[in-house]
Amino acid sequence: MNEPVRNLKPPVLARIGDRVEDVGTPALLVDLDAFDHNLAQMQALADAGGVALRPHAKAHKSVAIAQRQIAAGAVGICCQKLSEAYPFAATGIASIHISNEFVGADKLAMAVELARYVDLSICVDDVRQVAAVAAAATAGGVRITALAEVDVGQGRCGVDSAEALIRLADAIGNAPSLRFGGLQAYHGGAQHLAHWTRRRDAARRAAEQAHDYVRLLHARGIACPVVTGGGSGTAEFDCESGVYTEIQPGSYVFLDGHYGASEWPGRFQPRQALFLSATVMSTARAGVAVCDAGLKSVAVDSGLPRLWSGPGSEWLRYVAANDEHGVLQVLDENNQALLGSKLWLVPGHCDPTANLHAQYVCCRNGRVAELWDIAARGLSR
Amino acid sequence: MNEPVRNLKPPVLARIGDRVEDVGTPALLVDLDAFDHNLAQMQALADAGGVALRPHAKAHKSVAIAQRQIAAGAVGICCQKLSEAYPFAATGIASIHISNEFVGADKLAMAVELARYVDLSICVDDVRQVAAVAAAATAGGVRITALAEVDVGQGRCGVDSAEALIRLADAIGNAPSLRFGGLQAYHGGAQHLAHWTRRRDAARRAAEQAHDYVRLLHARGIACPVVTGGGSGTAEFDCESGVYTEIQPGSYVFLDGHYGASEWPGRFQPRQALFLSATVMSTARAGVAVCDAGLKSVAVDSGLPRLWSGPGSEWLRYVAANDEHGVLQVLDENNQALLGSKLWLVPGHCDPTANLHAQYVCCRNGRVAELWDIAARGLSR
Repeated sequence: MNEPVRNLKPPVLARIGDRVEDVGTPALLVDLDAFDHNLAQMQALADAGGVALRPHAKAHKSVAIAQRQIAAGAVGICCQKLSEAYPFAATGIASIHISNEFVGADKLAMAVELARYVDLSICVDDVRQVAAVAAAATAGGVRITALAEVDVGQGRCGVDSAEALIRLADAIGNAPSLRFGGLQAYHGGAQHLAHWTRRRDAARRAAEQAHDYVRLLHARGIACPVVTGGGSGTAEFDCESGVYTEIQPGSYVFLDGHYGASEWPGRFQPRQALFLSATVMSTARAGVAVCDAGLKSVAVDSGLPRLWSGPGSEWLRYVAANDEHGVLQVLDENNQALLGSKLWLVPGHCDPTANLHAQYVCCRNGRVAELWDIAARGLSR
Repeated sequence: MNEPVRNLKPPVLARIGDRVEDVGTPALLVDLDAFDHNLAQMQALADAGGVALRPHAKAHKSVAIAQRQIAAGAVGICCQKLSEAYPFAATGIASIHISNEFVGADKLAMAVELARYVDLSICVDDVRQVAAVAAAATAGGVRITALAEVDVGQGRCGVDSAEALIRLADAIGNAPSLRFGGLQAYHGGAQHLAHWTRRRDAARRAAEQAHDYVRLLHARGIACPVVTGGGSGTAEFDCESGVYTEIQPGSYVFLDGHYGASEWPGRFQPRQALFLSATVMSTARAGVAVCDAGLKSVAVDSGLPRLWSGPGSEWLRYVAANDEHGVLQVLDENNQALLGSKLWLVPGHCDPTANLHAQYVCCRNGRVAELWDIAARGLSR
């Protein structure tokens, strides 16, 4: 063993003003023009529909992006986990909805702590969970807004019967430390239907189911101030549904391979804003180019990254992801000319890809214009 | 926006002495008894074969683990990326091999900086890369050991002809700022062959190919001090090959679903040491239990996590990973009894799973005994 060298750290990824082509790879790049377009178009959609926009921060995990979303008109953000909410709460974001259930003493402690600082709402789908949150909130001297999650087609969390919803709403209503906030009604499967009309039809069916639950509550004399749900794929339909009071899209700021493969002929026409840069670092074998971006830089659960630009993007194909290697097939003989080439890849799935990185390198006019920390990276409790 | 609350952070994941069942989820757990067994058995295997053990730190990304490996007899570590090497170099680990090619000015700067602090070796498979590293080393006043990577069956990086190897070795030998270290000969595909005899045969073929290249160098009067390669799956064969002077296993300390599915009838009989803990947080739908560990807590490139222990591990199956949800099929009617249950899952692939977490929670006798930072998480440049 040598003596420790405490200040020995990798060089910074990029500096403001750097040329994009000089940024080391792999790096997560944001095209700010496309990002701004997506940000504004989704806000306009929500405004036109008279619904609140509460973007999902699980997609980007970045305080800088959440602040821009709120500055553009968003009412607050969603988080998927309690720990994920902390960096947002710490920087002063005032309204956070945890769009997910949680169980366990550590989670209850986080919910109570967060409720001291932000307007916190959470999801429940079990009366035992209502009792646990109510007791923790009472002990902690806070009041928490609880939304009942209803299943509108996702088949994952959420109650799926009138009886279960009424039991849940009554349990929340009877707990002095809780406030019944309304319904969480998210259909994840509908988001990724590639055909616009199928997506529209799935969104309408989900909205109808949510509407049935709202009517049920009204018939019992229970007010339902919020119906929240929807995602980037169905936002344009959710906004005009007359059922949703709030939408929760996340990926819309970035797009990814999965969403990019969808039809967007309607009022939301997003642009690809998120890219992973890579460098070809081996061309020793004929017909193959190997780049420096693999599984640890890009999530492959929704497909391999797709080449966006770079030399030969017509005849280069990313065909395999190893831990730190991306293997590209070269449909041309001159693979050796690619050594050192920079590639821009479109990740298959933006949310888990962002979770692998510490920073977004934001570019405009070929230069690095901003560096945004991914402060909630890895916060999955 | 609220006023910022700068010190608002999620609570610590665990404290030394905590009962394992009280640790919040999801968490990456290490069974220290199994870990110690794996650590000792691999070192014994290398010692018996008279080969050096240079464990691959890409698997664990933890200084604490590297220090234990070196204390047990390892000669140093491998890293897959230059930035990954920094936390290890900073804490005094003296010998680091970058088992991978790299191209680009930022990478050359990192190599030169690292070479000031550690005994650094790198891989090359192109004479253009040799020239670039030699020039950077000369300019930086350092000397770097370069190994020629040869393809022994992986079909990814590495030269695959006698002519190309000779050109490479000559280029290294002619560069005053470089030192020819020998051969990198890794066959990743052989590691995961489930059948022991097939794995052995693939390892032998790879060793024979490496041996041919060594003979070629010797015939040219070029000394080849190191032949390094091999992984957890083939280590027992590589040690007895008479060709490899050094082995590079990484996953052996942990095991994972992929390696766990292999036969281990030989001299290396690893135990499962890495687990992901999860909590069931929704049982609202019949036949389904949803836990809090999804794509952001566990890599699924090599298959979904498998249930190791927990209530009903015989009739519970992890069937789908969403961003922050793991969906479990309950082959029993009483799914509601599972709410709040803690599950231990075996990740399909340990390397990219470790890269998602900030800490290992190390357990012995049902208590948290150590907390190890995953200092190289996300360092993929």
